[in-house]
Amino acid sequence: MPAPRFPDDQTVASGGRIVLVVLDGLGGLPHPATGRTELETARTPNLDALAGRASLGMHTPVAPGITPGSGPAHLSIFGYDPTVHVVGRGALSALGVGLELEPGDVAARLNLATFDADGNVVDRRAGRPSDDEARRVVARLRDELTPPDGVRIDLEVEKEHRVVLRIRGDGLEAAVTDTDPLVEGRPALACAAIEPGSRRTAEVVGAFLARAREILADEPALNGFLARGFAALTDIPGYRERFGLTAAAIAKYPMYRGVARLVGMEVPEVPTSNETTIDVLERCFADHDFHFLHFKDTDTRGHDGDFDGKVRAIEAVDALIPRITALGPEVIVVTGDHCTPTRMREHSWHPVPTLVASAHARPTADAFDESTCRVGDLGHMHGTDLIGHALAHAGRLVKFGA
Amino acid sequence: MPAPRFPDDQTVASGGRIVLVVLDGLGGLPHPATGRTELETARTPNLDALAGRASLGMHTPVAPGITPGSGPAHLSIFGYDPTVHVVGRGALSALGVGLELEPGDVAARLNLATFDADGNVVDRRAGRPSDDEARRVVARLRDELTPPDGVRIDLEVEKEHRVVLRIRGDGLEAAVTDTDPLVEGRPALACAAIEPGSRRTAEVVGAFLARAREILADEPALNGFLARGFAALTDIPGYRERFGLTAAAIAKYPMYRGVARLVGMEVPEVPTSNETTIDVLERCFADHDFHFLHFKDTDTRGHDGDFDGKVRAIEAVDALIPRITALGPEVIVVTGDHCTPTRMREHSWHPVPTLVASAHARPTADAFDESTCRVGDLGHMHGTDLIGHALAHAGRLVKFGA
Repeated sequence: MPAPRFPDDQTVASGGRIVLVVLDGLGGLPHPATGRTELETARTPNLDALAGRASLGMHTPVAPGITPGSGPAHLSIFGYDPTVHVVGRGALSALGVGLELEPGDVAARLNLATFDADGNVVDRRAGRPSDDEARRVVARLRDELTPPDGVRIDLEVEKEHRVVLRIRGDGLEAAVTDTDPLVEGRPALACAAIEPGSRRTAEVVGAFLARAREILADEPALNGFLARGFAALTDIPGYRERFGLTAAAIAKYPMYRGVARLVGMEVPEVPTSNETTIDVLERCFADHDFHFLHFKDTDTRGHDGDFDGKVRAIEAVDALIPRITALGPEVIVVTGDHCTPTRMREHSWHPVPTLVASAHARPTADAFDESTCRVGDLGHMHGTDLIGHALAHAGRLVKFGA
Repeated sequence: MPAPRFPDDQTVASGGRIVLVVLDGLGGLPHPATGRTELETARTPNLDALAGRASLGMHTPVAPGITPGSGPAHLSIFGYDPTVHVVGRGALSALGVGLELEPGDVAARLNLATFDADGNVVDRRAGRPSDDEARRVVARLRDELTPPDGVRIDLEVEKEHRVVLRIRGDGLEAAVTDTDPLVEGRPALACAAIEPGSRRTAEVVGAFLARAREILADEPALNGFLARGFAALTDIPGYRERFGLTAAAIAKYPMYRGVARLVGMEVPEVPTSNETTIDVLERCFADHDFHFLHFKDTDTRGHDGDFDGKVRAIEAVDALIPRITALGPEVIVVTGDHCTPTRMREHSWHPVPTLVASAHARPTADAFDESTCRVGDLGHMHGTDLIGHALAHAGRLVKFGA
């Protein structure tokens, strides 16, 4: 399991098309009754056939033992070390709720909080309101708020007391301090600029937070915000610059499109289902070198602790594989961003089964599962190594040295 | 086989208990007659059962092809890259002979040497005396030496001509030069301070070496010392700080307790045998999050070239495993610090079989040996990756990113 080492000055060339199929939370743990994981249990004739013409392996998205969130995990399989390209929490939250970020936007995490008449914070999480309660209050703000000239302010509920703020306008940078005092019984802190370029952000945020207190003054519990994790779009060299690829993301959920946009992937159309994900691929296949397809249900069923449901979610993607191979991409990569074992109902740190199918593969067996991948030709990789293999199998990497 | 990359800012949490069982020099090479290694030959029903609920893998302590000494090898499996956390030779030797080091102590390696009447070195190793001869001379020095006020000087024979010096007192630092001229027929070099803070050390060492020559003037061969490898205790972030663990070392031999103390492990009691190692574990199991158990005989039999003896040493530890599992630690790690193949009678660079047993394991087979571990779910790791896996399986690592 190597450090990420795609050479900075590696020359890339034109070559074959690559399709990256991500089954979110793919890997699992053995069922106590059978000793077989979800992927080992699923009937996957199409993935097995693909494995028969693929090099197999395992990848670790961040580091041994480290359980990744979805953002860092996708960055890793896209080829970017998430411990180097740290995406700020506000930016990740914005991407997570589908608030797109453009260069110059600033995002932050807000807590709905309860303030007393003296302006002291009495509950930093406003009693953990329901999502609906939070949405009702945010809707009031959307109606009554008037942002300063030239500034756009967007709010989106993430979950319970957690709300995402995005501000857009000229002259905004993200180097401002949090307002969360971290203890109750004190007033919120002022949002202050850490660098001169962020002074306008501090002014806009300060005015917004004060106005929100006024608008919500008659609310008993959800009557103000604490703000933290201010972040702008991280400057990451995009797919075209770094890997010479025109790339597209086809993903139903905004979080995954957001991370893909971070690395310069286009979003041609937003699918609404597994099937329409392939429909979009078919329509735009000729337009890009690289297509990232995201399938969410495997992760969702993992979080539910629904072993059979995760098995079916894997089988549902398997059934779509012939439509991908029919397009004739030179390389098909199938993997997960991380494992979500149903036994754990959460993301985990375990290595993720991986397949790189191409005319240049060194196959292990006609089987795609944890026990086959761990003895595969690719060995145990870091997640960021995947892109090197994909590019190589597509004939896109120029020989290193004479 | 990764670069060590446990993130510096990884958040650790409370979680399950971890027991690290080290069979020193565990891995081996195939017996020419059977093709099976020592571990593959040993009957290990308890380790095999543990493997059946463990993730398996191989670790490389330092780097591919590099044969480690015991100090660096243990640092690695404790989670500290031994090429980064370099422990000075004098400090390692002091730990090796059981001279404990406290902050401010300075240790060095001494050679017993033969000087002629003009003060020239005529034999840098004093004819390689027996350990007993060296001990006799060191005993004379202990009797007759009067250290300067406020300074304590300790000497311990390491082996043959090699003696360890520890000086303790205020205002001592280790930046002083060696006195070994490296060639014979010349006088010893002066011990000189490289930095101002080490001037007192140079004075104390210079006076000690001169006085030793006087005391030993009537000895025909063992009549002085050459000093080198001056070192103080290396400043390493300890287990509590780095990994959030209260840790204890249970090891019969001082070297291993010494390295464990370097990383902040406590030494609750010193066992006298394999069995009392487990007795101590049972007594102090509730007091720490992490227990390191060291078993030496596998390495000793390896150095002896005694294949059957090493097999029996492995089986002896196997017999103790039920007493460990009975305590119910959430994670049991079994590995070696390095390989000591009996065919080589020395440490070697080969990957070391490793087992991480927990409720979250992805097992390979009910077998713990080289051929099973190399196709295990953990792949080929760096030794320093082991702690990340152990912490993850104990539920002690917070998710990385949202």
